[in-house]
Amino acid sequence: MSSSIPSLNPPHRLLFGPGPTPVAARVYEAMAKPIVGHLDPFFFQINEEIRPWLRMVYGTTNPFTMVLSGTGSAGMEAAVSNFVHEDTKFVVFIAGYFADRIAEMGHRQGATVVRVEKPWGETFTDAEVREAILRERPTMVGYVTAETSTGVWQGGNAICQAAHEVGALVIADCVTSLGTMPINVDATGIDIAFSCSQKGLSCPPGLSPITVSENAMNRLRARQTSNRTWYLDFKLLDEYFGGQKRYHHTAPISMFYALREGLALIAEEGVEARFARHKANHLELVAGLEGLGLKMLVNNPHRLWTLHTPIIPEGKDDMKIRKYLLDQYSIDIAGGFGQLAGKIWRIGLMGEGSKKENVALLVESMGKALAAA
Amino acid sequence: MSSSIPSLNPPHRLLFGPGPTPVAARVYEAMAKPIVGHLDPFFFQINEEIRPWLRMVYGTTNPFTMVLSGTGSAGMEAAVSNFVHEDTKFVVFIAGYFADRIAEMGHRQGATVVRVEKPWGETFTDAEVREAILRERPTMVGYVTAETSTGVWQGGNAICQAAHEVGALVIADCVTSLGTMPINVDATGIDIAFSCSQKGLSCPPGLSPITVSENAMNRLRARQTSNRTWYLDFKLLDEYFGGQKRYHHTAPISMFYALREGLALIAEEGVEARFARHKANHLELVAGLEGLGLKMLVNNPHRLWTLHTPIIPEGKDDMKIRKYLLDQYSIDIAGGFGQLAGKIWRIGLMGEGSKKENVALLVESMGKALAAA
Repeated sequence: MSSSIPSLNPPHRLLFGPGPTPVAARVYEAMAKPIVGHLDPFFFQINEEIRPWLRMVYGTTNPFTMVLSGTGSAGMEAAVSNFVHEDTKFVVFIAGYFADRIAEMGHRQGATVVRVEKPWGETFTDAEVREAILRERPTMVGYVTAETSTGVWQGGNAICQAAHEVGALVIADCVTSLGTMPINVDATGIDIAFSCSQKGLSCPPGLSPITVSENAMNRLRARQTSNRTWYLDFKLLDEYFGGQKRYHHTAPISMFYALREGLALIAEEGVEARFARHKANHLELVAGLEGLGLKMLVNNPHRLWTLHTPIIPEGKDDMKIRKYLLDQYSIDIAGGFGQLAGKIWRIGLMGEGSKKENVALLVESMGKALAAA
Repeated sequence: MSSSIPSLNPPHRLLFGPGPTPVAARVYEAMAKPIVGHLDPFFFQINEEIRPWLRMVYGTTNPFTMVLSGTGSAGMEAAVSNFVHEDTKFVVFIAGYFADRIAEMGHRQGATVVRVEKPWGETFTDAEVREAILRERPTMVGYVTAETSTGVWQGGNAICQAAHEVGALVIADCVTSLGTMPINVDATGIDIAFSCSQKGLSCPPGLSPITVSENAMNRLRARQTSNRTWYLDFKLLDEYFGGQKRYHHTAPISMFYALREGLALIAEEGVEARFARHKANHLELVAGLEGLGLKMLVNNPHRLWTLHTPIIPEGKDDMKIRKYLLDQYSIDIAGGFGQLAGKIWRIGLMGEGSKKENVALLVESMGKALAAA
């Protein structure tokens, strides 16, 4: 027997990076509540509360709307591996890291991947996506609604319309948009969408909410080859979380508790009010940052309401300024990476973090940091 | 804005099934502590505390010993999908559901799977495993140390020795053994082992501790084809959790906090003392169940110390007895499934659940249930 080991004592960070985001007390409390078994009626009851709320934030009536027992990256892998395989021609629109990752996952599944690329931080026009899809005539299309590496919003209407014209299904990455901006899965025509728990939903990381259209589920049911992934197989998950309640894996109960509480907070606020709050605080933060002389990487109207990417001014030291924020204010923001390493900051205002007083704190602390470092 | 939604209020179950198991207060408290980012120095510090403790419970010095951001089933998929592919001849020893699942995952990866089968609840002798491996000359071998569907312990020495003679690597499922029985990964010769957080480690479900030998990592590094899984790719995970701290995915921070505390409790108790506690309570429960006239499915010395599988007596109603236990005592035990559906109960005593007073409670309540139902 070793001597007594002190309990862990995490620092209190103000999480204003691209995620994880601040977590409400009610959500933390749920994490400490007693667990039940993964086949307990109470677990299925929680799950049946979660699913309609997920439909609400996604803007969909898809019956197959549920939660994967993995992070947002598992959601991406699930979306790709259920639908993309050796017989797939997969067009991916790439102007940032996460779209690149979708293409990489498609490549690993053995698909013919067509990368349609622009420099990081740009968006694709309706004409560009239409031209690419009609030219390539893919069976699957992938894009990112909210590119976490750049701060860009990419509209999906033209992508989905052209894709459906050629019989393709559309995968949309909603990791940094869900719960903060209108995604409108059904109205846009998105077939498969995935997200995470730790950004707009303001829960700890660990779960991936997904939604899949009936059209897409029908294609999956008709698939002749075996799905390589067992853990993320939508047909098996449908038997667990859907009507049959058939054992598949042991779901992370405590994370489901947290997500239930996070979604209850969204239902209490109302999604429209929540979107409006994110937009208002976004506009105020941009005005504040511009008031400090910073320029935004992304032009209006392509900016995310969740993640702000000011360009690092010439002569200023990225790391020094982030260290100042962390040391003086316990504020955690992120730098850029890949093509944008050292060129931008990434400042998140999502979920519980998107508050008027946080805007003021960020503008004040960034001003001090820019003057000091 | 909708009206106020009550916070969730889970029932207090006594978790004596095959998992999840009871969770210590210290572990629950950790789940509610403030999260930090997935690249925060504090997160990596927690991770560096976890890894030596995992080596301790696994009985290994493998540098690649870490935690996957998914459940035990994700651990199984990771073990298989990193090492089993189209060019693999994969021998799997199957006498229960979870070994069958390993074979199914191998099949999905496109491998030539050789199923070596016995009825559920039996074990393979040294001669049987040796004969099968030398005959088939596979490149990979899979087996289950503790079969959760049957309650059987399968020794691994003969499997690993024969496998290494023909140049194969061995995958061992340690889901229902880790932290409760000596696995001795290094001494046994296991190359890839996976487990879960919610059984012997007595944390909530959601993580999968894994360990991989240097031999196996070298084979992975030499692999010419691309790994189909990105989320569970050991080479990418090594860059995140290993020396480089390179972003891969957003790890479920709160679950890592919980696991850190669960492992601290094991380190405080000492693994040898912990194994002895599980064995003593196991023997006492078997004696108690036999005292009630129940017969065990599994013969000595092949019984798990964690999961007890008495045969349901002729004329007794499985569901009625389990309902009685749940209604009268809030005790949650499990039934059998697959080949053993309606034939056995599965009663777990693991981690925090393996206590003298729980043995007494289980024997008393089972006695009452058998008399009443």
